[in-house]
Amino acid sequence: MGERDREREEFLRVARLAKDATATLAPLPRAAKDAALHAIADGLTAAAPEIVKANAGDVARAREAGVAEHMIDRLSLSAERIAAIAEAVRKVAALPDPVGETVRGSVLPNGLELRQIRVPLGVVGIIYEGRPNVTVDAAALCLKSGNAVLLRGSSSAIDSNTMLVRVMQDALAGTAVPQEAVQLVPGTSRDSAKHLMRARGLVDVLIPRGGASLINSVVEESTVPVIETGVGNCAVYVDAWADLDMAVDIAVNAKTQRPSVCNAAETLLVHAGIAEAFLPRVLDALRAKGVTVHGDERVLACARQHGHDGVVPATEDDWYAEYLSLDIAARVVDSLDEAVAHIRTYGSGHTEAIVTSSQREARRFVAAVDSAAVMVNASTRFTDGEEFGFGAEIGISTQKLHARGPMGLPELTSTKYVVTGEGHLKGQTPPAS
Amino acid sequence: MGERDREREEFLRVARLAKDATATLAPLPRAAKDAALHAIADGLTAAAPEIVKANAGDVARAREAGVAEHMIDRLSLSAERIAAIAEAVRKVAALPDPVGETVRGSVLPNGLELRQIRVPLGVVGIIYEGRPNVTVDAAALCLKSGNAVLLRGSSSAIDSNTMLVRVMQDALAGTAVPQEAVQLVPGTSRDSAKHLMRARGLVDVLIPRGGASLINSVVEESTVPVIETGVGNCAVYVDAWADLDMAVDIAVNAKTQRPSVCNAAETLLVHAGIAEAFLPRVLDALRAKGVTVHGDERVLACARQHGHDGVVPATEDDWYAEYLSLDIAARVVDSLDEAVAHIRTYGSGHTEAIVTSSQREARRFVAAVDSAAVMVNASTRFTDGEEFGFGAEIGISTQKLHARGPMGLPELTSTKYVVTGEGHLKGQTPPAS
Repeated sequence: MGERDREREEFLRVARLAKDATATLAPLPRAAKDAALHAIADGLTAAAPEIVKANAGDVARAREAGVAEHMIDRLSLSAERIAAIAEAVRKVAALPDPVGETVRGSVLPNGLELRQIRVPLGVVGIIYEGRPNVTVDAAALCLKSGNAVLLRGSSSAIDSNTMLVRVMQDALAGTAVPQEAVQLVPGTSRDSAKHLMRARGLVDVLIPRGGASLINSVVEESTVPVIETGVGNCAVYVDAWADLDMAVDIAVNAKTQRPSVCNAAETLLVHAGIAEAFLPRVLDALRAKGVTVHGDERVLACARQHGHDGVVPATEDDWYAEYLSLDIAARVVDSLDEAVAHIRTYGSGHTEAIVTSSQREARRFVAAVDSAAVMVNASTRFTDGEEFGFGAEIGISTQKLHARGPMGLPELTSTKYVVTGEGHLKGQTPPAS
Repeated sequence: MGERDREREEFLRVARLAKDATATLAPLPRAAKDAALHAIADGLTAAAPEIVKANAGDVARAREAGVAEHMIDRLSLSAERIAAIAEAVRKVAALPDPVGETVRGSVLPNGLELRQIRVPLGVVGIIYEGRPNVTVDAAALCLKSGNAVLLRGSSSAIDSNTMLVRVMQDALAGTAVPQEAVQLVPGTSRDSAKHLMRARGLVDVLIPRGGASLINSVVEESTVPVIETGVGNCAVYVDAWADLDMAVDIAVNAKTQRPSVCNAAETLLVHAGIAEAFLPRVLDALRAKGVTVHGDERVLACARQHGHDGVVPATEDDWYAEYLSLDIAARVVDSLDEAVAHIRTYGSGHTEAIVTSSQREARRFVAAVDSAAVMVNASTRFTDGEEFGFGAEIGISTQKLHARGPMGLPELTSTKYVVTGEGHLKGQTPPAS
């Protein structure tokens, strides 16, 4: 048996352990799951020195490989960061349990009682990049919602992730949650991710968290159902009836409050009717924050006319770009419909905002834009599980099936119909009670 | 350009037309969609002679090819059947519109108004087998829920389907619903189905309706998200505390009331504690209905003891079988846990039933069985959109993502978050109203 086959065998062994664990985990009451999460938080705190030591190995390797300092920062764990991770686990324990919630229920005409109740999905696979905190966050959310989890992090964090999973498994030993419910996918080769993607029947859903290329490769290769997350080419549309002060503030906040995240704005669309009044002001404000504007012909012309030199010509690629940096593409449109058409063509379906005082235009924009979230007179930055009051989020879905937008605990569940009768037979008069 | 490339180009042209149509269709109010459905129903009734004529071609080809008579019956359309299909379209028009429903809503602590509303999925692809009535049923459900539909039926029904789609498109000409919202996938080769499966970005979801091999091939090859439907290896478990009269009736009803459908029972599990009392009675009742029982050692022994000769030995394959015929696999189990373990190993996750008088055992079974529907003291045959009060159904999902169990109109929608503020900026004090 070659190395590849061994890795596959080992993956299947681990995945089956996770699947078997769901039989014990799924029906557990909330108290048992919360106790297990507190045990994990305690375990992480107690093992902080070992975790920091394991992490130091990853960090040293990254330094040797010449990885950029901001990436090393993402990778690094300190006692303080581990305390924050443990605290986040306790916060998940404090959230309501979605499992068992009755989603709908009725008594059918024949007397059958119908209830649709939330149940765990089963085994959730997470494929993610650098940050080792995701290892614990994702595990906590999955356990709370009654799911086993298969974690496949990046090879750059392998020592940290191995230690974090070991600590979590050890902590579960004294609880009602089976240790096998949290598993690291063995190996860090491309093949090891493939095993996870092809494990239909063992894994119920795969959630890739990372950049567009990771997500595309998972979508392309996976036979396990996938929930796409996180790619955000978000637009702010400033309507002809916009309050211009508000529009400047929202454009600047959406672009610059935290440029590296998926709900930051990447495109600014400006109605021609207010372009002359609005563009000079927003260009000033963006320049003051160090933003490079990639403008179309009309934005460039306006910038030249007002002596702005911070605007560069936009190419077709700029309309598609998820910069995640202090860059924004800007374009003048002749109508709301043209703004919507631009978003349909180039957007990623994450979040779009309109700034307008017109109720009619707000309604039209909300109806026509086909994105996970549509903001009216608010920054795109509000699309977030915490902001929406979900308490925590496993990612932001940009697809339409199962979950769309920020995903909290209910999005980590499926449902089951429970039908109760007294000997009901199809095609026959129901029994008298 | 070869034939294959031409077919692909033609598919992409048609799929883009469908996608473009969603921009007009998605925001339409209920009245406009209902009027379009009534126009389709009228059009089908008026064109009944042409439809019957086109169908006659398919039927003649099937006869020539020596297709079995019951398959030809499924394929055949008469004026009467067309009237029933038109009536079903009017019934869909009478159902409530799921689009626009607020699924959740709240005012966030910062004053932002959050609403999660139902929106159409976009473009729905349906891959199905023989029955031409599915062409119209599926189109009606998709249009009612604001979706465009790409229909890919079987080559055996190509003349019927072509005519039905033409009649529907002609009927839409005078309505607010774009004609392009209903499309037949061009070609009937295996490639034409593949184009549909690989049309990620143009098609939002694919629903295969048919046998296990069709569904597996779609799951394996599709990059478009798939909702699996319809494979049902359903079990009836007769508990030690069962009312034996009720248990006999439910077993017989679940197996024989309509053996060819996915919610018919294929497996009978009997608790050892009542096997001696129950088995002879149920074997009698099943034999009276012409059912062949495939029994394990203990069922066989009991049958021999009571002089039954209708029981044949079960093989491992029998536990997996979706017979869809007058056959049932039967096994004696020592406990409810063993019944659950059997279902976990061999079941398809569709519907399982328990017959018991014990509240405790009913609760345990409901909690432990991981299927789309769990029946307590009722026939498995009740898992059905009509029975559940959904008015119509596009299929029965046996997967856990997005929809599980019978899928009505709400299951053909996604959601969108609409967030309304007054200039809200992230990380800053909310504006005073």
